[in-house]
Amino acid sequence: MGFSFEIAASDGAGRAGVFSTPHGTVDTPAFMPVGTLATVKTLDPDDLVEMGASMILGNAYHLHLRPGDEVVREMGGLHRFMGWERPILTDSGGFQVFSLAQLRTITEQGVEFQSHIDGSRRFFTPEIVMQIERNLGADVIMQFDHVIPGQSSEVSARDASERSIRWLIRCLAELRRLEQSQPLEDPPRKEFPPDNPRLPPPASRLPLHQALFPIVQGGIHEHLRQEAARAIRSVNDWPGFGIGGLSVGEEKDAMYEMIEVVDDALPKTHPRYLMGVGFPEDLLEAIRRGIDLFDCVAPTRMGRNGAVFTRDGRLNIKRTEYRTDPRPLDPDCDCSACTRFTRAYIRHLFVSDEILGLRLLSLHNVHFLLSLARSARQAILNGDLDSWAREWLSRYRTSSPLAV
Amino acid sequence: MGFSFEIAASDGAGRAGVFSTPHGTVDTPAFMPVGTLATVKTLDPDDLVEMGASMILGNAYHLHLRPGDEVVREMGGLHRFMGWERPILTDSGGFQVFSLAQLRTITEQGVEFQSHIDGSRRFFTPEIVMQIERNLGADVIMQFDHVIPGQSSEVSARDASERSIRWLIRCLAELRRLEQSQPLEDPPRKEFPPDNPRLPPPASRLPLHQALFPIVQGGIHEHLRQEAARAIRSVNDWPGFGIGGLSVGEEKDAMYEMIEVVDDALPKTHPRYLMGVGFPEDLLEAIRRGIDLFDCVAPTRMGRNGAVFTRDGRLNIKRTEYRTDPRPLDPDCDCSACTRFTRAYIRHLFVSDEILGLRLLSLHNVHFLLSLARSARQAILNGDLDSWAREWLSRYRTSSPLAV
Repeated sequence: MGFSFEIAASDGAGRAGVFSTPHGTVDTPAFMPVGTLATVKTLDPDDLVEMGASMILGNAYHLHLRPGDEVVREMGGLHRFMGWERPILTDSGGFQVFSLAQLRTITEQGVEFQSHIDGSRRFFTPEIVMQIERNLGADVIMQFDHVIPGQSSEVSARDASERSIRWLIRCLAELRRLEQSQPLEDPPRKEFPPDNPRLPPPASRLPLHQALFPIVQGGIHEHLRQEAARAIRSVNDWPGFGIGGLSVGEEKDAMYEMIEVVDDALPKTHPRYLMGVGFPEDLLEAIRRGIDLFDCVAPTRMGRNGAVFTRDGRLNIKRTEYRTDPRPLDPDCDCSACTRFTRAYIRHLFVSDEILGLRLLSLHNVHFLLSLARSARQAILNGDLDSWAREWLSRYRTSSPLAV
Repeated sequence: MGFSFEIAASDGAGRAGVFSTPHGTVDTPAFMPVGTLATVKTLDPDDLVEMGASMILGNAYHLHLRPGDEVVREMGGLHRFMGWERPILTDSGGFQVFSLAQLRTITEQGVEFQSHIDGSRRFFTPEIVMQIERNLGADVIMQFDHVIPGQSSEVSARDASERSIRWLIRCLAELRRLEQSQPLEDPPRKEFPPDNPRLPPPASRLPLHQALFPIVQGGIHEHLRQEAARAIRSVNDWPGFGIGGLSVGEEKDAMYEMIEVVDDALPKTHPRYLMGVGFPEDLLEAIRRGIDLFDCVAPTRMGRNGAVFTRDGRLNIKRTEYRTDPRPLDPDCDCSACTRFTRAYIRHLFVSDEILGLRLLSLHNVHFLLSLARSARQAILNGDLDSWAREWLSRYRTSSPLAV
């Protein structure tokens, strides 16, 4: 309801598609910037629009803690709260509960944990997470899953994967229950001031039609991945699929192999979202293997540490060799950092702990990945994804002292 | 040469003027955002242009330390380095040397000090500061002066004021020497990439015609202020005047009285720059007393601490009462923070230590002061500065629980 996926062209296993949501369309493959706490760190929504971002992420765990999903609902939902009118996907917090929270107790019912912010006791169940994600009002909502460390044993991986599917069924049941118990035109509880023309009108935003995506787990175990995909598909006709538990320390070859396994096991007709990926090389290798959507904190997090993605590989702006470098961060980039400022200036900002530096670095890096996905899409439309990707990766992986 | 000041209208001691510089004009009275380290903290030059900033500040002390004034010169000067094509004023660092640096030794020659960044030994003289400010290439450059704590004795105030005038004479001599020894079309040493269209062309920017402004000191001692103004005027026909040593802890009445004293002692035909001021009420009281230019870190620094200027006084966004407040920071403001976001959202960003929050708060506060100065200018043109200012201050000073 309100969601669809059309494939405009295929090239090998790669696909150029259009994913439609109630808040607009997403040309795929697409990179989704991560807006954990209702903000893509350091960036303004206008920056994201200007660089062509179609869809961004929010995080249910973080937003539940701050400012609270009830507060977000009261303010009209996440789109309105953060001033982003395009599609949003919320992660369920499954990863955060298992990586950030302290003193976790996992049962079949759910996960009891202490907030990493203030130590308060919290309890996440599939039902509670669905309520949270409904309060936030994102277009795509991820199931609450049982996340385990990478490199877990097959026994642990199976246990977590099977629990995740049982939790998926509960997520689906709760979502349907909530959709029926909350009327379609539930206005926000707050009156919005009439003299704020740029805020979208509230009535059309709540409640949303939301697409629940399951998450295929199974570690680096081929048969577990296949079983999980099969079991998930038998539960429901899903609007799209998340692929979790990769890019968590495993070998690249193992990761790429699992993507191929899951690509085979999932319907070609629906979008595949590879969670937490990633770096430029991983984006391209995954696109070649049938992935449509990506998210990763690397561009912003690494940007805030001075790392810069360029066509010729990564550099770190704090190096003294850039002190008087008049070139842009990436001479081939047309983002608003690269068309206006020099490496010398951005380096100065960064080593002086100036916030504008963090913003320009993040802006460039996010633009870089958005642009990379766009270029890959064009290559698929042109029918030369493999050769284009090979050439792109070859240049990226070759650190040329002359080029950089 | 390249500088002029025209008064479009007067109202009492207040003046609406146009200050012309080689990088464009400034409608006065004007607030100048402070870009200490070649960036107005958290803000993008495009933000500043959008909110109508005409002129900004840089600081010779800070830029000498990082990235180094030689680096700025090599990158084509401060305008080009930071991407600001409009007028710039650099403060000489007199205040910073006396407030930030450690282990200072003051002699008639100059000030020996240790950098607050890395403890390296530095020596500032009027001659060295002129070289620094010439390397930076700002339009208006402030003299190097002997700054002393507020509330100093009359003896100390006289000593510092008289030394400042001797240093002023040396500044002027050095500036003239530099202007003659460095040819008018001194191109930057770096070639700039041709494919960076938004960078201004180098040749037209260096070296600049620079206007040296003296600084009238004298503490809160009327006759010292008059003597300083007289002595300064006898040295040269200055293009404008700085007024220092106020808003450093003295009583408001004393500050306003000194402004009146200096207003009488300086020519009406030239711009008066009240350094380090300030808060909304001080801006208006100073404008009524003949001040044309202002600078202050309060909007950005206080913004980064959650303080917000509104027409109804100041508020602090971290208060829980704003947690679900759907109103903009200031319902009467049309800055891009107030037309797009709610207090609830900005509060969430601020308490979550999100950088976008710092930027939106700074953006609003700077816009607030720019807008206040513009409104005062309009009131002068309308001939009702006093009544307009009285009404504005009355509303600002009355904290109404209903209004805020």
